[in-house]
Amino acid sequence: MSVKVPSDIEIAQQAKMLPIAQIAKKWGILDEELELYGKYKTKISLDIFERLKDKEDGKLILVTAITPTPAGEGKSTTGVGLGQALNKIGKKAVIALREPSLGPVFGVKGGAAGGGYAQVVPMEDINLHFTGDMHAITTANNLLSAAIDNHIHQGNALKIDARQIVWKRVLDMNDRSLRSVVVGIGPKGNGFVREDGFMITVASEVMAVLCLASDLMDLKERFGRMIVAYNMDGDPITAAQLGIHGAMGLLFKDAIKPNLVQTLENTPALIHGGPFANIAHGCNSIMATKLGLKLGEYVVTEAGFGADLGAEKFLDIKCRYGNLKPAAVVVVATIKALKMHGGVKKTELGTENLEALDAGFENLEKQVENIRTFGLPVLVAVNRFVNDTEAEIALLMKKCEEAGVEVALNEVWEKGGDGGVEMAQKLVNIVEKEEADFKLLYDVEASIPEKVNKIVTKIYGGNGVVFTGPAKKQIKKLEELELDKLPICMAKTQYSLSDNASLLGAPKDFEITVREVKISAGAGFIVCLTGDVMTMPGLPKVPSANKMDIDEDGNIVGLF
Amino acid sequence: MSVKVPSDIEIAQQAKMLPIAQIAKKWGILDEELELYGKYKTKISLDIFERLKDKEDGKLILVTAITPTPAGEGKSTTGVGLGQALNKIGKKAVIALREPSLGPVFGVKGGAAGGGYAQVVPMEDINLHFTGDMHAITTANNLLSAAIDNHIHQGNALKIDARQIVWKRVLDMNDRSLRSVVVGIGPKGNGFVREDGFMITVASEVMAVLCLASDLMDLKERFGRMIVAYNMDGDPITAAQLGIHGAMGLLFKDAIKPNLVQTLENTPALIHGGPFANIAHGCNSIMATKLGLKLGEYVVTEAGFGADLGAEKFLDIKCRYGNLKPAAVVVVATIKALKMHGGVKKTELGTENLEALDAGFENLEKQVENIRTFGLPVLVAVNRFVNDTEAEIALLMKKCEEAGVEVALNEVWEKGGDGGVEMAQKLVNIVEKEEADFKLLYDVEASIPEKVNKIVTKIYGGNGVVFTGPAKKQIKKLEELELDKLPICMAKTQYSLSDNASLLGAPKDFEITVREVKISAGAGFIVCLTGDVMTMPGLPKVPSANKMDIDEDGNIVGLF
Repeated sequence: MSVKVPSDIEIAQQAKMLPIAQIAKKWGILDEELELYGKYKTKISLDIFERLKDKEDGKLILVTAITPTPAGEGKSTTGVGLGQALNKIGKKAVIALREPSLGPVFGVKGGAAGGGYAQVVPMEDINLHFTGDMHAITTANNLLSAAIDNHIHQGNALKIDARQIVWKRVLDMNDRSLRSVVVGIGPKGNGFVREDGFMITVASEVMAVLCLASDLMDLKERFGRMIVAYNMDGDPITAAQLGIHGAMGLLFKDAIKPNLVQTLENTPALIHGGPFANIAHGCNSIMATKLGLKLGEYVVTEAGFGADLGAEKFLDIKCRYGNLKPAAVVVVATIKALKMHGGVKKTELGTENLEALDAGFENLEKQVENIRTFGLPVLVAVNRFVNDTEAEIALLMKKCEEAGVEVALNEVWEKGGDGGVEMAQKLVNIVEKEEADFKLLYDVEASIPEKVNKIVTKIYGGNGVVFTGPAKKQIKKLEELELDKLPICMAKTQYSLSDNASLLGAPKDFEITVREVKISAGAGFIVCLTGDVMTMPGLPKVPSANKMDIDEDGNIVGLF
Repeated sequence: MSVKVPSDIEIAQQAKMLPIAQIAKKWGILDEELELYGKYKTKISLDIFERLKDKEDGKLILVTAITPTPAGEGKSTTGVGLGQALNKIGKKAVIALREPSLGPVFGVKGGAAGGGYAQVVPMEDINLHFTGDMHAITTANNLLSAAIDNHIHQGNALKIDARQIVWKRVLDMNDRSLRSVVVGIGPKGNGFVREDGFMITVASEVMAVLCLASDLMDLKERFGRMIVAYNMDGDPITAAQLGIHGAMGLLFKDAIKPNLVQTLENTPALIHGGPFANIAHGCNSIMATKLGLKLGEYVVTEAGFGADLGAEKFLDIKCRYGNLKPAAVVVVATIKALKMHGGVKKTELGTENLEALDAGFENLEKQVENIRTFGLPVLVAVNRFVNDTEAEIALLMKKCEEAGVEVALNEVWEKGGDGGVEMAQKLVNIVEKEEADFKLLYDVEASIPEKVNKIVTKIYGGNGVVFTGPAKKQIKKLEELELDKLPICMAKTQYSLSDNASLLGAPKDFEITVREVKISAGAGFIVCLTGDVMTMPGLPKVPSANKMDIDEDGNIVGLF
């Protein structure tokens, strides 16, 4: 990347934002459908769906990526830049993104909302409390926790087995000390002592439910179906049995509405919901995406991690529930990251290495193939860096041509929408030329092992799946409860197509081991864990928080 | 109270609210000073203080009460109704109130923002997430907690004594199971095991700091001074030493701005901050009160509990720090509550009882005397109930006349501002006739025992104060740390002028025992506890949450 570009926060703070009401008006949103949060953020009433129900939907574009490496791919940046670029070439494009979690902002992450000249703003707000959605999730999650412990304290009419409470408390904070706690210590009035733990808010099933719900009533019903514990007979206890899902729904009176902000080039960006991409499906809300489809000719959205995880879940979970049909998929890659997949160390990425690029290309090729498995057209988008050599670029172009996949270089980080015009034009050509024939990967009515096996063999390129003893028992339990006919949410390392983070490129002849099978009955998916997933991050030695400050004029430093 | 009046939520939902921007404009707030949260809530930029710095301040009216009884006094309702009534008689009056805590809404409280035809709206929003101030407090408090444990985990350079961490985590939730917890369980990466506890958010010192700060820089500095622990040498460790106060300040970028809403009669209401009235001072923010003084000819504000606690702390802590000079004080009473002070049981309050009223009057008389001790004019405001008899009313009038205090009946609950016209008129007469000669009760430079003794003898009517052994030790420690020259924040039962909740009326010949002395170095006061204070409520057998729901049109039930 060029050194001439100022820092993300400098760029963001210099942005010429338009009043969000003005952008909303331009994009056909009525004044009475807005709920402003200051001048540059607004929620949009779900009433808009009724008004626009006969309007034809725009085209849905998913931005995904090769398998992530420490070199970075710039998926969000590409998504934001692509949205800007589509508008540059005369297409009405809207962006739909995930909301960042506040906790990690204080850890190592700082803040993020794209990068360079492809960012969403006001970035300080988006990275701090935004419009309070995260806080609504935290509150609803913890209200349910309080209701569980209170139910037991008040006599435990439902015979909840305190050893089998699966619902954890949450905080939107990186706080390792809360990973495992004992609650209820002290006198009788403090309730019963038991082990518990806190997750970070985005890991809450409440977040996944928000992102998969179709409306407020569906949200409430999904809350009601959430399994919080098992009773002494082994039967599941739900939030509805505790009578708490109505109050939880009430807490989402506002949070259910998608948020509208803008990019540095005043492109509308819907930012709503942001579940974990491992134990949940890692995409923004269905409601935001559907709203985007009503507002724009194009909606550019993203999914977490690489295509094997993020895109697969986007397609098999989100599109399944939302009845969404993508028009095309953009797979983001960088030459540096492909060289890492070809075996180069991070410290040596500055040097031209055609051999490594050639070898690492197999990861891109496999991820492109994965998208085609779903019947979707693909564009490869390469984020160009200043030290990518001409020879490397030429080789990558040639490899893509040989693989029969369209490819576009882009410089949206450095140049904003102008840097993505070629990419946008190629995408439009693909969409206008090639009709998507979207098909889901598996039949949801198949057994859990059948569904997972299909993901492993067709998407990961593995030989099959192995379930550990405990996982088999959990599957049997879900079959008994008739909760096995749901989509699968794989929780696997994002750093390899396999379940071994050190296997880069496109590994072959491996099996995936599922160690734990969990049900998210409200979200409506079965989580298959191939290893431990960290659901509560910790702070580093010197947290980002220690560099943050605000001066008397409200100027912020250290956020990025 | 009359049975013809519909429920609070029915009244609130039928309110004809004006767009808050329209109210703001009418009251001289510029468009660019607004930060709207939907159509009916707005934050107001602190820049307004610079613009209005030469404008003369309005008159500050404190609404306080007799010693609370289970019969209720209707202090908030009177405050809201008085604001409405002042506008009815042509005075520009603004109301300044505390923000309700979300947690108790799900417990027994439901929601509250005045009552009957003297309410602030939109009440659903005010009682739920409002503009996110509570969530900012929760986040800042818990960021500091995470920083403490992380500091120890990362090597404990400050030699924090894990047994002497005084900073607790918080949640805005009634959750008894979190009162006492053990954190840091599990492998090394989860940090060190230690005892901790959660308080409800409003009990956080962060809340008290918000309410006493003069601006963002003062807020940050106060955060920095907060003592979170002691090291192995017994020296205090502050948030500034952990380098976390800048990030905490950043989290208050928006939350520092007062919120403006309206009453049912479109009177402006500033609602900002709401600290506990026992371990903290129990008043809305100084910034909101000062803003009100710039906007209105009158500002009607309130303080928690009865005059001995709420008004004393309002005057000796908030007015001291804010350099505020009240013009008059309204002491709210009801005939029912006075009869309870005279010895009548709650079940027998429906029957006329002149003897009990006569006896219970001593509580009102003492609270009026307390206000006069501060050199302030007093108006007694009596909330009229339908089963108050003419003879009872006549007796109360006579007693007030004998005591030389102005009194006004009001029916604001049933009639809104119209029901408070006489009260408003009498208040205006007092303010225009009688010049307040406000003096603080004690010199802040006096010793802790001297200051507490003055409160006990002059305000509570007791003989003096006794400090337990541990309390004496804590005083000595504060003297060594040179932190004893701060105002006193008494944490005493609100149900009696003494520290024994069963002593009603105006008890004599008692001593107050201070069992614990704590420092809130950021807020800037010394908390003297006379008994245990519950800082984390629990949920009842059937929580209000279980009756709450929201339908597909967004209609809310069970919130009140």
